[in-house]
Amino acid sequence: MNDSGFAKTPRPPYYAVIFTSLRTSRENDYGKTADRMVDLASQRPGFLGVESVRDGNGLGITVSYWASTEAISKWKAHAEHIVAQETGTRLWYEHYELRVAKVERAYAKEKT
Amino acid sequence: MNDSGFAKTPRPPYYAVIFTSLRTSRENDYGKTADRMVDLASQRPGFLGVESVRDGNGLGITVSYWASTEAISKWKAHAEHIVAQETGTRLWYEHYELRVAKVERAYAKEKT
Repeated sequence: MNDSGFAKTPRPPYYAVIFTSLRTSRENDYGKTADRMVDLASQRPGFLGVESVRDGNGLGITVSYWASTEAISKWKAHAEHIVAQETGTRLWYEHYELRVAKVERAYAKEKT
Repeated sequence: MNDSGFAKTPRPPYYAVIFTSLRTSRENDYGKTADRMVDLASQRPGFLGVESVRDGNGLGITVSYWASTEAISKWKAHAEHIVAQETGTRLWYEHYELRVAKVERAYAKEKT
């Protein structure tokens, strides 16, 4: 059983950034940069975890979890992340939607 | 370009149900039921849209969007949905996490 895809989040409230995206066919270091962004984000204050899935058609949903909107704003303004955001808009994403949401309730179920 | 994977949501605030799950290998009408649940949910009052991705390892994220927490509670209590939830817990999902969140801000970018 592989549980690495789930974020270990604390009890609500906390924040979620829901990033839904459709990839173009351009690679241009996309995979390397995506991994680097997860590494960098993980080191930021207030980062709680991330869950990310992309299917064979290039549609992806990445949800990152944060302790506060301040933590999200600081990550958004991180210099290396800004470069990645610009490249994403220019090259990697045909379309994306980004939503910032406050998690109010959470439930989990795991087979034992 | 295929934009069918994106939900056309109104201006915030509205609500998101973030459902992250790892599938078992059991089929038992999973695909049919999943499609039926999306159809049924779409007909509920307050339903705003849904985005759903599952990768080749069985990890999936489905985010449904709703006008209010009341709309979410009513959908959760829908008789046919309750049966599906029970089968999901018993057969289809190794592990799931469900989070209810209030979307406060949203941005989008589409190539023209």
